[in-house]
Amino acid sequence: MTPVALIVLDLGASAAQDLAVVDPATTVLPATDLAATRGDGIFETVVTVAGVPQASEAHLDRFARSARMLDLPEPDRALWRRAVTTAAAHLREHPRGAVKYVMSRGDEAGTGVPTGWALAFVPAARAEIPAPLDVVTLDRGYRSDVAQTSPWLLQGAKTLSYAVNMAAMREARRRDAQDVIFLSIDGFVLEGPNSTVIARFGDRFVTPPVELGILPGTTQHDAFAALHRDGRQTQVRPLTAAELTEASALWLCSSTRGAAPIAHLDGRTVRVDADATAIMNHALDDRKE
Amino acid sequence: MTPVALIVLDLGASAAQDLAVVDPATTVLPATDLAATRGDGIFETVVTVAGVPQASEAHLDRFARSARMLDLPEPDRALWRRAVTTAAAHLREHPRGAVKYVMSRGDEAGTGVPTGWALAFVPAARAEIPAPLDVVTLDRGYRSDVAQTSPWLLQGAKTLSYAVNMAAMREARRRDAQDVIFLSIDGFVLEGPNSTVIARFGDRFVTPPVELGILPGTTQHDAFAALHRDGRQTQVRPLTAAELTEASALWLCSSTRGAAPIAHLDGRTVRVDADATAIMNHALDDRKE
Repeated sequence: MTPVALIVLDLGASAAQDLAVVDPATTVLPATDLAATRGDGIFETVVTVAGVPQASEAHLDRFARSARMLDLPEPDRALWRRAVTTAAAHLREHPRGAVKYVMSRGDEAGTGVPTGWALAFVPAARAEIPAPLDVVTLDRGYRSDVAQTSPWLLQGAKTLSYAVNMAAMREARRRDAQDVIFLSIDGFVLEGPNSTVIARFGDRFVTPPVELGILPGTTQHDAFAALHRDGRQTQVRPLTAAELTEASALWLCSSTRGAAPIAHLDGRTVRVDADATAIMNHALDDRKE
Repeated sequence: MTPVALIVLDLGASAAQDLAVVDPATTVLPATDLAATRGDGIFETVVTVAGVPQASEAHLDRFARSARMLDLPEPDRALWRRAVTTAAAHLREHPRGAVKYVMSRGDEAGTGVPTGWALAFVPAARAEIPAPLDVVTLDRGYRSDVAQTSPWLLQGAKTLSYAVNMAAMREARRRDAQDVIFLSIDGFVLEGPNSTVIARFGDRFVTPPVELGILPGTTQHDAFAALHRDGRQTQVRPLTAAELTEASALWLCSSTRGAAPIAHLDGRTVRVDADATAIMNHALDDRKE
């Protein structure tokens, strides 16, 4: 990533000086911020096209949902929207950029006011149609019902505690792959470390439900809308690991990559559906909000 | 906590200027440090008595173990020991203090050099003999064998991704308790969010093995040594959730609290063994290294 601008939010302020634009290389966090000491916070990454954030409201919805799951104060939606817009404006000259925004529980030596920032950056370049991926399935260790039985496990919240997701990506590279699909121990397809799974069966496109303890996929949501407009059937339902091997095509969806087709799953060749891939990604690139 | 001093390590340096002492309120991290964006790093907290770190080598061992589990560069043991000693020296006038030291994977917009710091602080005051705790058991969601089957879940590593541990502590408070014992889904006792479990059965003191995907407890280790010197039997073996209810006494051990007896477990009264509690904590306070 290439950082372009950093917006620091003053979440304790009621004044007009609640956003400050600083050089993204500035040190802004003390060593006692709970983002850094406990991964105790939430984030979203929104893509920008020529400085315009895409699916911004869906990301703000999910940010608020994550805050509730972590018992964080409800984000001031207007303030965060303004922070994202302000950061995105610094990316006007970049056809494709991204804004990552973060709220932590604050400084553990401080007054209990959350910490907030929004970073504008240019992600690693990607092709207009994402390159096919080699993917491995990995055990996520959890049953598919933990979001219901054990909400303190925070499954389905987009938290800063991503060490497991990072370790899973390293395991994928160790297996000569580039990405991961997590499976529950009771045999259900969950999600990627930073993506949502779409599987095609005949004319139907399927993605797993959030009740399995996964994130609501903002990119998957808009990809499904595009498929629907094109007359395809879409469905949200639990998907077994066995069904993955029967899908006629598979994708991983994420903000910064769009809908990336899977070429190999656990070493087995998967057909790349160039037609559906193009439909989804053209629509994703055309989003305005 | 009351921060006293911060030592910033330059882990890319081969020069003499590899440690810098700064005011702990200084902002030292950019918003792109992987500690803050991904909880991608490791830590240890060592207690100091009049500025002398206790069980320092055991903590350095565990720090190196966590680094290996996260594929981080091996910590330069002499440098980290010096950082801990330098931080601890700022606590000379405090009968009881603590040094928390952290290594992250570095700045995600940077050059791949890890970030390191050691914070000297005075923890919230505690009684010489820790007050008895009200504790609840909570599902950790994992089988007891995930450390063997699925190392990317990082069970047993002391990482910065502690959002689940923090959420479990909030769940405990919601249930009018102060702490948690995690259980595996196959019915084994694991550990607390920041502590190790000791259970007494007759004359024998038992703690679960690290093979269950839990941290090796540095405080529990020294508490067992004290019990052993006092002629008691100690044993490391798997402990079922059912056995917890049969124990004649229970403790949670952690660096900053020592061996804290449990007074209630899931609402049920547990006998507080004042004698064994005193033996362990007097020995813990007398450690030198």
